[in-house]
Amino acid sequence: MSFEIKEKDLLGRIGKLKTKSGTIETPLLFPVINPSVQPVLPQRLKDVFGFEAVITNAYILKKRYQNKPVEEGLHNFLKFKGVTMTDSGAYQILVYGGVEYDQKEIITYEENIGTDIATILDIPTGWHVTKEQAKLTVAETHKRAKNFFTLKTRDDILWVGPVQGGKHLDLVATSAKEMGSLPFNIHALGSPTEVMENYRYDVLAEMILTAKKGIPIERPLHLFGAGHPSMFAIAVALGCDLFDSAAYALYAREGRYMTENGTWRLPEMDYFPCTCPKCATETPKMLISKPAKEREIFIAEHNLWVCMAELKRIKQAIRDGRLWELAEMRSHAHPALLSALKRVKKHKDFLATFSPCVKNSGFFYFNHEGLTRPEITQYKQRILTRYTPPPNTKTLLLLPQTRNKPFHKAPEMKKIRRLLQTIEPELANKIHIAIFCAPFGVVPLELDEVYPLSQHETALPIDKETVEYVADQTVQYIKQMPYSSVTLLNSNKLWNNIIQSAVQNVCVEKNIPFETVESGCTNDRQLIADLKTILLKQLST
Amino acid sequence: MSFEIKEKDLLGRIGKLKTKSGTIETPLLFPVINPSVQPVLPQRLKDVFGFEAVITNAYILKKRYQNKPVEEGLHNFLKFKGVTMTDSGAYQILVYGGVEYDQKEIITYEENIGTDIATILDIPTGWHVTKEQAKLTVAETHKRAKNFFTLKTRDDILWVGPVQGGKHLDLVATSAKEMGSLPFNIHALGSPTEVMENYRYDVLAEMILTAKKGIPIERPLHLFGAGHPSMFAIAVALGCDLFDSAAYALYAREGRYMTENGTWRLPEMDYFPCTCPKCATETPKMLISKPAKEREIFIAEHNLWVCMAELKRIKQAIRDGRLWELAEMRSHAHPALLSALKRVKKHKDFLATFSPCVKNSGFFYFNHEGLTRPEITQYKQRILTRYTPPPNTKTLLLLPQTRNKPFHKAPEMKKIRRLLQTIEPELANKIHIAIFCAPFGVVPLELDEVYPLSQHETALPIDKETVEYVADQTVQYIKQMPYSSVTLLNSNKLWNNIIQSAVQNVCVEKNIPFETVESGCTNDRQLIADLKTILLKQLST
Repeated sequence: MSFEIKEKDLLGRIGKLKTKSGTIETPLLFPVINPSVQPVLPQRLKDVFGFEAVITNAYILKKRYQNKPVEEGLHNFLKFKGVTMTDSGAYQILVYGGVEYDQKEIITYEENIGTDIATILDIPTGWHVTKEQAKLTVAETHKRAKNFFTLKTRDDILWVGPVQGGKHLDLVATSAKEMGSLPFNIHALGSPTEVMENYRYDVLAEMILTAKKGIPIERPLHLFGAGHPSMFAIAVALGCDLFDSAAYALYAREGRYMTENGTWRLPEMDYFPCTCPKCATETPKMLISKPAKEREIFIAEHNLWVCMAELKRIKQAIRDGRLWELAEMRSHAHPALLSALKRVKKHKDFLATFSPCVKNSGFFYFNHEGLTRPEITQYKQRILTRYTPPPNTKTLLLLPQTRNKPFHKAPEMKKIRRLLQTIEPELANKIHIAIFCAPFGVVPLELDEVYPLSQHETALPIDKETVEYVADQTVQYIKQMPYSSVTLLNSNKLWNNIIQSAVQNVCVEKNIPFETVESGCTNDRQLIADLKTILLKQLST
Repeated sequence: MSFEIKEKDLLGRIGKLKTKSGTIETPLLFPVINPSVQPVLPQRLKDVFGFEAVITNAYILKKRYQNKPVEEGLHNFLKFKGVTMTDSGAYQILVYGGVEYDQKEIITYEENIGTDIATILDIPTGWHVTKEQAKLTVAETHKRAKNFFTLKTRDDILWVGPVQGGKHLDLVATSAKEMGSLPFNIHALGSPTEVMENYRYDVLAEMILTAKKGIPIERPLHLFGAGHPSMFAIAVALGCDLFDSAAYALYAREGRYMTENGTWRLPEMDYFPCTCPKCATETPKMLISKPAKEREIFIAEHNLWVCMAELKRIKQAIRDGRLWELAEMRSHAHPALLSALKRVKKHKDFLATFSPCVKNSGFFYFNHEGLTRPEITQYKQRILTRYTPPPNTKTLLLLPQTRNKPFHKAPEMKKIRRLLQTIEPELANKIHIAIFCAPFGVVPLELDEVYPLSQHETALPIDKETVEYVADQTVQYIKQMPYSSVTLLNSNKLWNNIIQSAVQNVCVEKNIPFETVESGCTNDRQLIADLKTILLKQLST
């Protein structure tokens, strides 16, 4: 196996990809090398910036340099002592409508120059195409993929099988399944460039997830042509392992300065919002007065630093189990990125299936986008399928979440415990206490130290979609559990009576008694007395 | 005037603060200098990192070094050729309950060492105090402030008058008004450290805004003891201009690594998620094997780079008119920061009063936290107080927002224009077209190119609170304008019928005819025919 997964979070992972020229760590970005105009020399990319691998285009190499890279070997030709990947000219098919070589010629060339990772000559689907056209690209890509295995002679190269289909998700699903059934080492999602140019990151998210569901999960996925750091975190969270960037250099030529939160044009800048070794001692004003070539190299190197730091941030986030937080933060760089994250909700079960259940750290819950988190899906599945209340409990006492956690240690719980002590044990044992809290819904008190039920922080006040999720989970819980009555300590201020009316309705539906007391209306002593009266009444029926 | 405001956004501004040792640009962070244990020499802070000013403690200097700083002068004593600020020992009053010198001694000492910016000896309120105790600190601070003006002899020093009151907002308001009426050059918000230690950034936000409302808006505000970069953007957005940080050094001593999104402990790190000149070429593993002192200096310098970059990011955001976006992004570093941003909603009118109406760039709308934006408040105020529909218009045709903007150039509008062309001009002129859109609500079509009605991007789908805001603004608009009927082209998919029922209700209330057509139910031709029938019917009554 050439790919070994070391750590994971959501669908993202830190992996080791073994190639004939060395092992590289993913998530990884291949800077695109254009041998004829290259602002930063390949070996400098490795030695100074830490890029272990680069990508170049076999089609363009063959066309422009013919036999030289074959004679010298790709690594010597590029003067790069690291891992090399080659693309095949498929992007040129998309842009120019065709290329001068057939797949056999490209494959043979890739083998002859000795690249470490190589791409077959697939047919990109593109963006502005009808479904019929898209179908043809998927079919032709599949045909070429099968044919490729009769052409290749080298097994020490890692071969990439691109998934096509564009925005047509059913075609992406077909393509992923077909390509995934062939023995490729790596898969790629074809030509998302136009999707991104149109800011349809929501469509891109679905394309990625659809591809992921079709290919074997243990193979790395390359997202072709995605080189902006603002979307790396979301793409990794959805399962992309490899990226390539020509953007660092193309942007630099146009004076476009990348950050993990967006792009500036140099003339718009009064400050460099960056700590990188280039920006630390320079101002935009100083830079703008320098020769064009110097400016270009400066920005290219800045762009590379930013990309590298974002990849490290992503890896650290995977290690910390906080990739969701990072993706959520990044989704605030542009509304189109947030739309992408919102779209992931449809796939939350898929996310939950592959994400770890227990993590190094607690989590931060901000608003309903967070309902997509695997922790919440996993909790809901477990509580509704595997849990039953303690034997002999009869009535459910539902209490609102407390600021301090775990809930059973919060100061508010002391009064409740004291109340239970005033009830004779045989009756008190029939009372089951549970908390309703954002974002989980009902949490039985005896479980409140199970990860992550106390290991999270929630932003207050809670947004409406979250309140409704809590209400819905509470209803499902009560519907299913064998309580004979329910008492709710309501907290209108935080929950706006939505939980209260939901619980009332489900009790009516189940035909069991429901009582409620509002917290904060009367003094504590009265509240406790009222609760006691209600509980005794409910237990006596 | 010692403070000149160059650019502003929200309550944040880029300013020039003139001192006797030079002019410094705000927002600015004073690194705290402890002359006896200083991981980074003061002059290095300026020459390498670009910190133009530092802060040290006059009380501690006097106690520990007595006359030496007086003889040498503070700048020589610190070996710092820049701007110096001194705190007064007030924090030591809070921590130790009292200090050894009285205000006169401190003021005289500050004058004698020749600091550029100096603080009176106020009495911090602190966090765990009753209202009565808090009242005393406010009264005593005010008394000392008035007394100070009889003590000071130097007018070339910028004097800082701290605002106290703690979490008791009415006391903060009193204190701000009293201190603001005295001729201080700078104000400070006293001891927010404990508020932050308790993660009550929501309370801190209200404290800052309450102080801002009381002091003259043209004086700079210093937030004492707030040195973590994750909260700079929000604090600047609320009107803080000056910060000080001992944290960069204190954290370093404990191996705590700051980022603009939170803090890591060194042993938890596999990667440095940073491009700074320290981190670019080092790994946590390498660092952890080094001597403690070297580790401490490394982290202190990293922390300083991160703080400096965040300040530049904030200034660039002010210049771009995108400080809200940055604050919103940062509020996703911790739920307590998002709670703070949510709390600002109560003060949105104050924000709108001082924030510019027209900006360099459009804005990004993510979810209902954005409803606090001044652009939205300003639009609502203007449309409801200054706008009347074009003369002779009789019926309102309300259309849903389009993906492309300006709305009147969107492809969907072509069909509507063609429809109007089939109605005789005299009648067609009686139809007033408006768009309902997130986040603004009703936008009359003829205004849709006015900033920022087309210069924004909204994340889809729209969250419930935003839909409700749009519904509410739409209702207020219809209630107030003299239409005799309303036709709504509904888009249930995006708006979940909430706009539709709100419009229906207000029409019933106003007793005017209301009709609705659902977009996407029938084919376009049928839709247009239905709309025409309705419009003609409404115009004929």
